[in-house]
Amino acid sequence: MDPNNDLAEELERVQARDSVVRAWAARHSDANIIEAFKVAPEGLLSGWTVGVKDVINTFDLPTERGSPIYRGNQPVSDAACVAVAREAGAVVTGKTVTTEFALFTPNITTNPYDPSRTPGGSSSGSAAAVADRQVRAAFGTQTVGSVIRPAAFCGVVGFKPTRRLVPLAGVATLSHAFDTLGWFTRDVADSTTMFQAMTGAGASPQELNRKVGRYLSHQWEAAAPETLEAIDSSCAALEAAGVEVIDIDPLPSLELVFDAANTILHYEIVRVFAWERTHNLDLISDLVRKMFINGARVDHEDYKAAQTVLVSAQIAYQEFMATNHLDALLTPSAPGEAPPLKTTGDSVFNRVWTSLGAPTIHLPVRQGPSGLPVGVQLVGQSWCDQRLLAAAALAEDSFSITT
Amino acid sequence: MDPNNDLAEELERVQARDSVVRAWAARHSDANIIEAFKVAPEGLLSGWTVGVKDVINTFDLPTERGSPIYRGNQPVSDAACVAVAREAGAVVTGKTVTTEFALFTPNITTNPYDPSRTPGGSSSGSAAAVADRQVRAAFGTQTVGSVIRPAAFCGVVGFKPTRRLVPLAGVATLSHAFDTLGWFTRDVADSTTMFQAMTGAGASPQELNRKVGRYLSHQWEAAAPETLEAIDSSCAALEAAGVEVIDIDPLPSLELVFDAANTILHYEIVRVFAWERTHNLDLISDLVRKMFINGARVDHEDYKAAQTVLVSAQIAYQEFMATNHLDALLTPSAPGEAPPLKTTGDSVFNRVWTSLGAPTIHLPVRQGPSGLPVGVQLVGQSWCDQRLLAAAALAEDSFSITT
Repeated sequence: MDPNNDLAEELERVQARDSVVRAWAARHSDANIIEAFKVAPEGLLSGWTVGVKDVINTFDLPTERGSPIYRGNQPVSDAACVAVAREAGAVVTGKTVTTEFALFTPNITTNPYDPSRTPGGSSSGSAAAVADRQVRAAFGTQTVGSVIRPAAFCGVVGFKPTRRLVPLAGVATLSHAFDTLGWFTRDVADSTTMFQAMTGAGASPQELNRKVGRYLSHQWEAAAPETLEAIDSSCAALEAAGVEVIDIDPLPSLELVFDAANTILHYEIVRVFAWERTHNLDLISDLVRKMFINGARVDHEDYKAAQTVLVSAQIAYQEFMATNHLDALLTPSAPGEAPPLKTTGDSVFNRVWTSLGAPTIHLPVRQGPSGLPVGVQLVGQSWCDQRLLAAAALAEDSFSITT
Repeated sequence: MDPNNDLAEELERVQARDSVVRAWAARHSDANIIEAFKVAPEGLLSGWTVGVKDVINTFDLPTERGSPIYRGNQPVSDAACVAVAREAGAVVTGKTVTTEFALFTPNITTNPYDPSRTPGGSSSGSAAAVADRQVRAAFGTQTVGSVIRPAAFCGVVGFKPTRRLVPLAGVATLSHAFDTLGWFTRDVADSTTMFQAMTGAGASPQELNRKVGRYLSHQWEAAAPETLEAIDSSCAALEAAGVEVIDIDPLPSLELVFDAANTILHYEIVRVFAWERTHNLDLISDLVRKMFINGARVDHEDYKAAQTVLVSAQIAYQEFMATNHLDALLTPSAPGEAPPLKTTGDSVFNRVWTSLGAPTIHLPVRQGPSGLPVGVQLVGQSWCDQRLLAAAALAEDSFSITT
């Protein structure tokens, strides 16, 4: 592929589609992007355009966090992930639309497959821009389900590495317990290349056990028929590719995690947003204000108890994955196709994995009843990101043949 | 105590001593501070003046991070801890001097007990300002030993809570694995009040087992005679106060932590400071540049292995503390009295506890051979901060009677 051809196509896509998809909070001019391509250093990401979720600092474009409180806010430096990407040759074309503070209030971006549907949140613009081929990759963040869910609704690959593997330096905090940097790409190969650029990990192939667990979540009843079909056809494709797929009953230690994560999130945001609360409450949406009220009711003892629940679950999960020699769990990414724009969709299938800090990846599989993308989530063991990416590459291959 | 009297004394101290101690990177005018006292809200910290380490954002004073790269950098909002403190009634008087990026290059602050000695780093100005009675309390951060070490050298109480209990939102990152917010006060009671303000924890007395472990660190040979004397006299005082003190042999699982922490720190700072490295290498000190070179040599696989070492050690440490019913371990805070200004001192007795994420507190005990402060460190179980603070209050009481 000639990267210059890709760039021309991407710029045309933005020109043609931006008024509908509305993925960008701020963007460099085409002339500046073309110029930046010429002077970018040589590296793993040479020839790549990258979008940056608007909670991540860039020295050359504002970071507004989806909130009028931060309108025009111009950071003095790049977030670590952005600087590392630029050092590896990537060109940042713009900042992608986020929901307010990366929480649940919908913003202006639409789903590239149907403008009446949500692209998901909170990394809405990043998922939509990659899905619409306006950019090759985009950074997002996940605190509950903000990478995997929009990836699912927009039909792209969304990867959330092990928590705190990739620096959050220069990324606005939502919850210090859970925030994790991730990214969107069109395929697993690109996601793996981004992982290598971010971490210095080698490109050597990972040894796989070729064993995946089909995991029926505690929230299984939330899955729509198209999701069950995607799980079934994915498992069939994996088996056809010679992967052993075993059924896993929901782990008892994970049952308490869902509520514990909710307790921690609410407790934290009251304190994390103390400045915004005390200075600009009038500029904060009703949904977020309601979360502050709920958070103020969480007692410190309950917060500590929830943290203890999480620690136990993390230990149990790591042990389970290691002793069963599983490359990944296969489980839903989202309840079904993207819902209408008035919500960013339900993160019911994401919260537990985010809370555990485990790496997780969304893979598109098929179309749902409305012709919108549906896929599956693979969840790995913490600090075994490369094995998860290798398993995802194998799965992606198998899906393209048989689903 | 009439807080207005305290304020007048503090302002006079700054007037008289600032040219020697040099604790402040930026400071409000006395008139502005007096005015802020009048309009501060009622709360747990009413009547308190607070200093803020210059890696922590404030909307009304610059945050320069001890680096010419960030000269004049004015954040648009307060860090979470600052906003929470102000909401509880505290008045921020100024930003305290930090070493460059909270690393090891000495800055301009001197030790209040002897201007030819270091106040310690990296929270140098915060420790010195509290020790010199220029402010009632001050925020610091600890990534290796940057709260406990300066507290020891300056003879104040320094408390580092369980990692990620208090938000780091708005605090510049050094290492996302280890950075922890903490604070300096003159006594344990003030440290406990600050903890309550930050977390919403209740003021009810904690039940103590009245059992402390005397812990001979793997780095024990680094301790100077005055430190051994402080440990001995502290243990004697605790026993006189009816606390059981048992000798603990160094835990095997902690032996690997020291090197693992070093690996993680170096790997992370290369990426965390990618922007500064690629844009302003000429404005970075030789010491920090050398760390970048060492960090670039750390392979991703070594970083992952080090993270695995840490996880195992954290689990083993928590289990050890719980099964032995220990309120705290008693161990050195620093090798001895504050060394000369050309170094910020050795963090050899801090790194392991920081890496574990455990809460830890420094208590002044006595004077060393040069008349400078010497004390001890109490280390608690993660998420049991209130118990550690209660044990520290008991210890502080016992020291004042018998040491």
